[in-house]
Amino acid sequence: MNKKIKVGIVGANGYAGAEVLRLIAEHPFAELSVVTSRAQLGKKVVSAFPALPCDLEFGDASDPLLKKCDVVFTALPQTAGASLVGELIDAGVKVIDLSADYRFENVSTYERTYGVTHPRPDLNSLAVYGLCEVNRKQICRAQLVANPGCYVTSVLLPMLAACKATKISGIIADSKSGVSGAGRKADEAYSFCNLDENFKAYGLFTHRHAPEMAEKLGQSILFTPHLLPIKRGILSTIYFEADDPTAALNAFKTAYTGEPFVTYIDTLPEIAYVSHTNRCVFSARFEEKRGIVISVIDNLLKGAAGQAVQNMNIMFNLPETSGLPIHAPI
Amino acid sequence: MNKKIKVGIVGANGYAGAEVLRLIAEHPFAELSVVTSRAQLGKKVVSAFPALPCDLEFGDASDPLLKKCDVVFTALPQTAGASLVGELIDAGVKVIDLSADYRFENVSTYERTYGVTHPRPDLNSLAVYGLCEVNRKQICRAQLVANPGCYVTSVLLPMLAACKATKISGIIADSKSGVSGAGRKADEAYSFCNLDENFKAYGLFTHRHAPEMAEKLGQSILFTPHLLPIKRGILSTIYFEADDPTAALNAFKTAYTGEPFVTYIDTLPEIAYVSHTNRCVFSARFEEKRGIVISVIDNLLKGAAGQAVQNMNIMFNLPETSGLPIHAPI
Amino acid sequence: MNKKIKVGIVGANGYAGAEVLRLIAEHPFAELSVVTSRAQLGKKVVSAFPALPCDLEFGDASDPLLKKCDVVFTALPQTAGASLVGELIDAGVKVIDLSADYRFENVSTYERTYGVTHPRPDLNSLAVYGLCEVNRKQICRAQLVANPGCYVTSVLLPMLAACKATKISGIIADSKSGVSGAGRKADEAYSFCNLDENFKAYGLFTHRHAPEMAEKLGQSILFTPHLLPIKRGILSTIYFEADDPTAALNAFKTAYTGEPFVTYIDTLPEIAYVSHTNRCVFSARFEEKRGIVISVIDNLLKGAAGQAVQNMNIMFNLPETSGLPIHAPI
Amino acid sequence: MNKKIKVGIVGANGYAGAEVLRLIAEHPFAELSVVTSRAQLGKKVVSAFPALPCDLEFGDASDPLLKKCDVVFTALPQTAGASLVGELIDAGVKVIDLSADYRFENVSTYERTYGVTHPRPDLNSLAVYGLCEVNRKQICRAQLVANPGCYVTSVLLPMLAACKATKISGIIADSKSGVSGAGRKADEAYSFCNLDENFKAYGLFTHRHAPEMAEKLGQSILFTPHLLPIKRGILSTIYFEADDPTAALNAFKTAYTGEPFVTYIDTLPEIAYVSHTNRCVFSARFEEKRGIVISVIDNLLKGAAGQAVQNMNIMFNLPETSGLPIHAPI
Repeated sequence: MNKKIKVGIVGANGYAGAEVLRLIAEHPFAELSVVTSRAQLGKKVVSAFPALPCDLEFGDASDPLLKKCDVVFTALPQTAGASLVGELIDAGVKVIDLSADYRFENVSTYERTYGVTHPRPDLNSLAVYGLCEVNRKQICRAQLVANPGCYVTSVLLPMLAACKATKISGIIADSKSGVSGAGRKADEAYSFCNLDENFKAYGLFTHRHAPEMAEKLGQSILFTPHLLPIKRGILSTIYFEADDPTAALNAFKTAYTGEPFVTYIDTLPEIAYVSHTNRCVFSARFEEKRGIVISVIDNLLKGAAGQAVQNMNIMFNLPETSGLPIHAPI
Repeated sequence: MNKKIKVGIVGANGYAGAEVLRLIAEHPFAELSVVTSRAQLGKKVVSAFPALPCDLEFGDASDPLLKKCDVVFTALPQTAGASLVGELIDAGVKVIDLSADYRFENVSTYERTYGVTHPRPDLNSLAVYGLCEVNRKQICRAQLVANPGCYVTSVLLPMLAACKATKISGIIADSKSGVSGAGRKADEAYSFCNLDENFKAYGLFTHRHAPEMAEKLGQSILFTPHLLPIKRGILSTIYFEADDPTAALNAFKTAYTGEPFVTYIDTLPEIAYVSHTNRCVFSARFEEKRGIVISVIDNLLKGAAGQAVQNMNIMFNLPETSGLPIHAPI
Repeated sequence: MNKKIKVGIVGANGYAGAEVLRLIAEHPFAELSVVTSRAQLGKKVVSAFPALPCDLEFGDASDPLLKKCDVVFTALPQTAGASLVGELIDAGVKVIDLSADYRFENVSTYERTYGVTHPRPDLNSLAVYGLCEVNRKQICRAQLVANPGCYVTSVLLPMLAACKATKISGIIADSKSGVSGAGRKADEAYSFCNLDENFKAYGLFTHRHAPEMAEKLGQSILFTPHLLPIKRGILSTIYFEADDPTAALNAFKTAYTGEPFVTYIDTLPEIAYVSHTNRCVFSARFEEKRGIVISVIDNLLKGAAGQAVQNMNIMFNLPETSGLPIHAPI
Repeated sequence: MNKKIKVGIVGANGYAGAEVLRLIAEHPFAELSVVTSRAQLGKKVVSAFPALPCDLEFGDASDPLLKKCDVVFTALPQTAGASLVGELIDAGVKVIDLSADYRFENVSTYERTYGVTHPRPDLNSLAVYGLCEVNRKQICRAQLVANPGCYVTSVLLPMLAACKATKISGIIADSKSGVSGAGRKADEAYSFCNLDENFKAYGLFTHRHAPEMAEKLGQSILFTPHLLPIKRGILSTIYFEADDPTAALNAFKTAYTGEPFVTYIDTLPEIAYVSHTNRCVFSARFEEKRGIVISVIDNLLKGAAGQAVQNMNIMFNLPETSGLPIHAPI
């Protein structure tokens, strides 16, 4: 652990990329080597973002230094980074991809969901789905990790545990996300005056995280996302039926024992319990076979940049909590 | 319409009561005659609430002037005002009760739900359930109107329409409310620092609005309320199955044609569309028999004080929109 | 008062224009005749803004119907509407202009401040500065009213009263405004994620409302605006020295006695006291000759659309509070 | 650095104390040994605060283990902890006191300001004022550090630099703070519904941080605090006159060169630049001799718990940035 891990970030202008930047800048065992952004090309990080007093200059995604990194985080829109990922993999660099490109086992599900042609389907089988607590062993040995979607993480962590314990059916995930989930944008729909004191649903029956959840759960799921007037955080209210509710409850309570970042609690979780941390906290209630899970994460941390860094920690055999907050601020 | 209606408000210190006060203070055909509050007894309204420049003094609920009013709005906690309601009814005063006391047809459902004994079950059959667009004819002739619950209003307005058109089953209402729904209180759990940038569910399987919805819908319903970090507004995401989805959709689109306060729209409603207005706006989406309704109201207006004043307008044969805003501010 | 006043609004897509639209739509003695917006041309108001259920279609600023209106509100950026104002005046229409074009007595101050050439300096002497409580008599007879700036209104109402009573010097206005003051825009700097939980100053020594204040006060003033993470409202903290503090305090307390919209209170005003109302509420504290005034308004109402409608009420000899809320919601 | 520093926290239920707890829980070179709270006595930290997954139990301020700590943070209301501080000092424990008790050089100023009698005036000369960047050398050797007030820190860091460079006079600090500055409380005035979308001034001419600023600056200062509807952060707008503006500007720009936590920037600082970090960022503008400084901190970090931990780092000769964030999250 004497030499720090050299990190590259592609797409560091977006919220997820910028959060990776922040986490690595304060990480005890890693250091920023290259950061790229088309929008900020040539600017110092600190000039573009006075909140991030980092003197590196934003480079280009073609920067050859990326191939000298130990690990590169790619945070580009779907398909935009898929070829670069291939080049980095070919050059022997480990890659943690925050896009959806390599998340699906079934490439055609990906293509149908995102309405695109996968630029590098050949790499897909290489990729490990980076849901840390579930796939830790494979992540450990992976060269390419596909970081899960934010909503998806909040749903899968509890529900995969239940699905292993008993038959779960009729899942409805009613999820509510902070605005940062939509990314950095100059769009009146995301202006302060439009969203403050407001709340809305979107993507009914059509959100792209539903197929990702469905593939991992092995069953279809009805998913409705909503937009909360807060910056960060997701709360998912998950309705379902359990063949054996006792087995399900037991699985919820024990599946993540000892995990620093995933915790079952008896009281009802609130987003503030996990804001600015890498935790997922959840609880469950049952009335006969009908169950409800409340699950919370910080969409930019456990839902994106935090889980990405957790994946890095696993891939490089670092203490898994390195550089990742567990205690939430007031 | 030459002489203004004399209005009394009992419990004008609470949020719902204070909103009735505000609406009546600016109502073209009504005027404040008596306002009472134990907490503010003897203070001028404007001294207690500089936001309400009204020179009336808060009196006591035993004030004999209440019986000289044309109409009294009672906004006390359940059972606390039930006997007073009886006295006012006996004195020939019209009463619009914002508590849950007279909302249930079945008194024992009320008693079980609220864990109380009804002080005046004899009056219950007198009461008309004040869901204006649904029960207008009975409200017109009523002496006692039971104003519906806020969450309940957001769910019943769309779902009653569908239930009349086809068989609806498996209803789940996932509702999100602004903080004013919890009432005025000095409670750290409702402090700014606890709720700002936060979001949580509460009352899973146990909230008291579920039996009220169930009675009116004639079927059980799974209801989960949540607390939004905004002051006003409710959005309910309602999942269900429709035997005949086309009939349901048609009912949604046509049931409230011509109604000034209830509107079906094709796009997805947002809370901001109805904040500070007396409207309910909703939309529906279907995938085969599975339907989702998004319904929004302002919890203090159409969900409480606004609907109460709408009931008054109906009871006194005034233009129904008098004193009730329809256009939402930015 | 039997026939409603026919109202046109030019630039109804902006926040101020849309608020005029909302106020007129619910005004007892006025009705919308024409609304224009280049951005929304051809759309129904309700389609562009589901929060405003108005079936009018947005027209063009060249619409000849504008000249048939009794009054037109022009809410365009500076200079953009100045010629149209001239045409309307020539056609005998009364005009209430919400831009800065006609606010200055001294045209060259206007031109220097806004860095433009005034398109119709000939009209300037016609215009009455529409600070209602101060210039009511002239407004009454005016054909062209220049509606004051939002920050300016919050400062002038208290300070003009003091300046009449004693010598006031060294004025510093440290003002804080809600985000709607910046107007409707698709700009990342005004995105929810940028402004939520944030606060900043801007325009140090250079904001264009300073010369407007200075002209009306007859003395220079140091003005610093700030951006609050709220939608509506301005609070100005005004520091100054009074030659005769007793005279100043007395002026504050008595200058607006009887005015429905301007009130001195003994306790410290909060923005929530006036949000969604047309009021200005202020208070003062002194330590020897050093004084501090706290003054609050709703920037879109008393600071823009509300004062504009108040001006209309005055110009058409209507009850001055018609259609303008006084009681603030919770 | 092999053995971690043993830390005690007295009053860990308050916001400042709880933030110290959080920082120490994630500090690389320190560990929690004892935490006390009268309100939470006997509860596990994680039970009282699910956001803080720490298994320690809240003890009593009389816990003898406190005297075995290497350092104790005392975060009690003024005078309540002053005697305990004395006992700990006598026992050889280093103490960082977050109250105002030991902040003043002049005990009688303290007593007049807080309306109390100092319980241990004898200790006062021992105490070092813990404004880290200014008093680092004395802090290094101190056994008792008095942690500065939050507002005070935001004003002193820039203004002390200017005062050393030239004569500064007529200082007015118009400061705006997030709600956490008021502490944890069950008080309707601090309820979400009272503060959301609201803003107000308080303590005109009378706030207790003014004498603290005045003592350190060596001149009187006019200070007006305001309450922002955000959880964390202070922005101070500071007006003054500089005899030599060039010298003042130069001092601003160079006084903190090389400091990781205090930075002059050319653009105008925003609270979001420093939220959740231990930084103070400021900028200045001049018009002849008249100057304005905009200074921002996180009131709970650089304004309280963060600066307290920075003081600990200095007192124990640790890298000064240990456990203290510099990069602000989105």
